[in-house]
Amino acid sequence: MITSTSNPLIKQIRKLKDRKFRKKSGLFYMEGLRIVGEAVQTGAHLEQILYCPELLTSDFGYQLIESQKVTELPVVEISENVFRSFSLKSNPQGIAAIGRQKWQQLDAFDIGNSRTLWLALDSIQDPGNLGTILRTGDSVGAEGVLLLDQSTDPYAPTAIRSSMGSVFSQKLVLLSLEELDKLKKKSDIPIIGAAGESPVEYFKVHYPESMILLMGSEREGLTERHLELCDYCVSIPMIGRSDSLNLSVATAIILYKIFEQRIKSDYIELKR
Amino acid sequence: MITSTSNPLIKQIRKLKDRKFRKKSGLFYMEGLRIVGEAVQTGAHLEQILYCPELLTSDFGYQLIESQKVTELPVVEISENVFRSFSLKSNPQGIAAIGRQKWQQLDAFDIGNSRTLWLALDSIQDPGNLGTILRTGDSVGAEGVLLLDQSTDPYAPTAIRSSMGSVFSQKLVLLSLEELDKLKKKSDIPIIGAAGESPVEYFKVHYPESMILLMGSEREGLTERHLELCDYCVSIPMIGRSDSLNLSVATAIILYKIFEQRIKSDYIELKR
Repeated sequence: MITSTSNPLIKQIRKLKDRKFRKKSGLFYMEGLRIVGEAVQTGAHLEQILYCPELLTSDFGYQLIESQKVTELPVVEISENVFRSFSLKSNPQGIAAIGRQKWQQLDAFDIGNSRTLWLALDSIQDPGNLGTILRTGDSVGAEGVLLLDQSTDPYAPTAIRSSMGSVFSQKLVLLSLEELDKLKKKSDIPIIGAAGESPVEYFKVHYPESMILLMGSEREGLTERHLELCDYCVSIPMIGRSDSLNLSVATAIILYKIFEQRIKSDYIELKR
Repeated sequence: MITSTSNPLIKQIRKLKDRKFRKKSGLFYMEGLRIVGEAVQTGAHLEQILYCPELLTSDFGYQLIESQKVTELPVVEISENVFRSFSLKSNPQGIAAIGRQKWQQLDAFDIGNSRTLWLALDSIQDPGNLGTILRTGDSVGAEGVLLLDQSTDPYAPTAIRSSMGSVFSQKLVLLSLEELDKLKKKSDIPIIGAAGESPVEYFKVHYPESMILLMGSEREGLTERHLELCDYCVSIPMIGRSDSLNLSVATAIILYKIFEQRIKSDYIELKR
């Protein structure tokens, strides 16, 4: 049992709260029954499971630990004081893990497949928004997210928490705008952007079977460079005082319109 | 200029971060150009404007202060150290205010009006979700929010920030489930609930002209008592691993479907 906060593993956990160290190490820290459970169930690559017998009261938690002992994954016992010293929660559930980040390569999938829905995001400021978008993407059967910059980290603790585990089921791809441009030319997949200035309301569009939905950042929206990449843009009407919506809300509204059309076209196919 | 953190006004600001003191005093603290600007522009009842000359660089900020001097509202200058001591931000913009909470009474409005869209929320855990819901409600022209419990505070700093000022434009009503029941019987306004177990998908419903959308809490959703109040319930389909959506996302998806129908029916009226 680890009882000292100066233990190298505990030091590593603290460092993993820092984006630079996450990037350098390729690792990340996750905490709580739901997230560790999702990681195990989706076959995420774990390096260590950590638990604190004084804090862990859940049977599900002990089952998780037992199941991992079979795979010879290191399971480390931690004293309550030490666990609380690095915990992200005021009432820790007593279970945490260190995982290895998983990034997809561009050539690892055929983006032009029929019924492929991808999201592309650039310079998201709030990791909570990114996590929430992953969660919504999972719900509508999106493949995953193309991250067009280095600054948004889906493995930030807040992103992991808001994703409710979808960070493990959604594919994550890091690529530049130039690479997205090349990909688009190669695969002929349409890119649809969300831009407040578009006269086309999002609910008047029949969305293509295969597409990338491109969303800009919270502050800037889509820039000129983004707009050049878009085949067309849609807007979300608003009649109140606000001139914008929360980014994860705006993304969900469009994603669910696309999903609605997909569900309805399924019904039509069934009737034939 | 206030230069001491033990000044009574500064002590009051610190206490306003605590929900109990907000409730007791009926006041709240807001910070930043956008929020203070929205408060002034929507005619919110302000008690004090606070600014820090070393931090406030925005012309708009100084215009706000000048405009308030005309109304004889106390404008208080604060030293940088003291401002930073209570600021909610790591890079404070140097402007803040104390406002008086505004709650609508039930008899102050006719809830049965045509084209009235209200939200009803119960036991929201995350004030950020509440703020985001207010922001989305503003965008679709909702009247406001009926808060069915004492625990969710739209004047919590996180709620105010996520509302992006919509906390001032949306009406806020505090009422019990019993009072909602009475209101419903009196006004005959339909209540539509969002419940995962409903077989009716949200996009298959033609929403009434006047209605209350009832959303449950993040953890529990709608309880039996809520369901008894609902005329009918709708669900949001999901095909991924997740069994739920973020609450503010789920609310937005249904609100925007209602809004879409309202916009489309407007088009029809124009054609006549």
